[in-house]
Amino acid sequence: MIAEPTLLLVLDLVGTFVFALDGALVALRVARLDIVGAITLGMVTAIGGGIIRDLLIGAVPPATFSDWRYLAVATAGGLIAFLLGHRLERLSSPITVLDAAGLSLFAVIGASKALDFGLGAGQAVLLGAITGVGGGTLRDVLVRRVPAVLQSGLYAIPAIIGAALTVAAIRADVFGPVTAVAAAAICFLVRMIGVRYDINAPGPPRRAP
Amino acid sequence: MIAEPTLLLVLDLVGTFVFALDGALVALRVARLDIVGAITLGMVTAIGGGIIRDLLIGAVPPATFSDWRYLAVATAGGLIAFLLGHRLERLSSPITVLDAAGLSLFAVIGASKALDFGLGAGQAVLLGAITGVGGGTLRDVLVRRVPAVLQSGLYAIPAIIGAALTVAAIRADVFGPVTAVAAAAICFLVRMIGVRYDINAPGPPRRAP
Amino acid sequence: MIAEPTLLLVLDLVGTFVFALDGALVALRVARLDIVGAITLGMVTAIGGGIIRDLLIGAVPPATFSDWRYLAVATAGGLIAFLLGHRLERLSSPITVLDAAGLSLFAVIGASKALDFGLGAGQAVLLGAITGVGGGTLRDVLVRRVPAVLQSGLYAIPAIIGAALTVAAIRADVFGPVTAVAAAAICFLVRMIGVRYDINAPGPPRRAP
Repeated sequence: MIAEPTLLLVLDLVGTFVFALDGALVALRVARLDIVGAITLGMVTAIGGGIIRDLLIGAVPPATFSDWRYLAVATAGGLIAFLLGHRLERLSSPITVLDAAGLSLFAVIGASKALDFGLGAGQAVLLGAITGVGGGTLRDVLVRRVPAVLQSGLYAIPAIIGAALTVAAIRADVFGPVTAVAAAAICFLVRMIGVRYDINAPGPPRRAP
Repeated sequence: MIAEPTLLLVLDLVGTFVFALDGALVALRVARLDIVGAITLGMVTAIGGGIIRDLLIGAVPPATFSDWRYLAVATAGGLIAFLLGHRLERLSSPITVLDAAGLSLFAVIGASKALDFGLGAGQAVLLGAITGVGGGTLRDVLVRRVPAVLQSGLYAIPAIIGAALTVAAIRADVFGPVTAVAAAAICFLVRMIGVRYDINAPGPPRRAP
Repeated sequence: MIAEPTLLLVLDLVGTFVFALDGALVALRVARLDIVGAITLGMVTAIGGGIIRDLLIGAVPPATFSDWRYLAVATAGGLIAFLLGHRLERLSSPITVLDAAGLSLFAVIGASKALDFGLGAGQAVLLGAITGVGGGTLRDVLVRRVPAVLQSGLYAIPAIIGAALTVAAIRADVFGPVTAVAAAAICFLVRMIGVRYDINAPGPPRRAP
């Protein structure tokens, strides 16, 4: 473990919690699912990215299955969102903010874990980005939305930035609580700026009229 | 292997067969696919849950690939459903019954296999439920339906019950042909009662009018 | 490695490149995605089949992550397709031809790699077919199309033919540059004949009027 294990665990559990809230809110908002559907979608969103990451680096069974805290946190997040959902569902910002927070935390954790498992720098950046976008992509596929990672350029890019900053910090031997949170915060800010000003990457050149 | 290997193999092959029938019937009913599409969707439904389970516990290559009987049974199920589909496709009950049978058998097998691979009780219950709902979820995503596991509370819950009973029976050292079939039967009954009386888990509180 | 490693690597990279072009063109045509979305969908199409194959045979981390050339080729393919897409997007044939080329190359590579990892002949044929159709299936799910593998019988069948010829050539000890390319070419021709003459496998018997 490169950084303090406790720090990474806390960040990972926070990311799991916010993604579970996010997934369950999407379940209520988009598909009006019942309590089991909302908790299920919350759990898929919360643990999907980490499971994809662990499968790709060969860390099986995934952390989610060997450490009950992830499942407990994911279930709690889904349940809380279900119970409070009627107060939140007319607002779109909670879903976007929670999703950006999970994206940021998981990009940092995923890149760090990939380096722990001996992957190269470029692969670790990609794996961090996949960890960040994975859960939300599974969520969107299950409720039949085109995934955010395809629709908005400023979704994959902040995840890549967060993962790249993490890899750079680890390689420079300055990875710790401050730099980990800073990398996640920069990822979060880039994502939220993209949402606020509706910035996208360039569209296809010379669109047909 | 905790229970008699032959019993588990037979139950697993029966589950594979009924899920293959189910998937191919969905192919004919929902998407009017041709013979290759029907067999393909039957195979995905039949072996998808077991493949997800085996990837998560690190049992690679999955049993499906190391034991040709799964592939033979899955292909046969898809072919039979294709050939007989015109007699069945106006009825909705075969699909529901077959799906409930596969769900029940795979929840029991999945939980048992997870304990064999050293996972804890809670993780084994979750993995059993994932094995049960996995194939049907892949099927629904491929034909662009919102998966049953999200839409009906009484889809995940019976799978969790069946898996939990299996784990309890194994831990109490009474897992054998009778208890395995009983756990699957209880899961099946809960699912069918939910379908018959259209019972769902509670919906979101205070829905907007 | 059974055949010359260099040959397989070159064919694999060519397959990766054409699938990346294909995926990015689908992104522009079907979903009008921006540059990041187009490159992302190109990468998913290009490396998805190989990642599924490597997960199933336990070759983790997948070749894509341990060999940067795959990622570079996939990114380049997506970028080129994005930049040239406006010249190609009114034509439907490039997407079909590129997709058939990737399908053919990946079926051959996948079957060969499965034998390398000790799978039996039947399993290697299936794994070759999965490698061929995997990337395109993920692509179609992400942009919410029913996957080609379900809709057209002459999509899975050529992949199975290409994989079976590869397994036969390896078992007959005549696998080399000529036979590898020949197996891929036969797969490609069967697929293109199916497209050209709109041939499908038999539909369900006695359709309801």
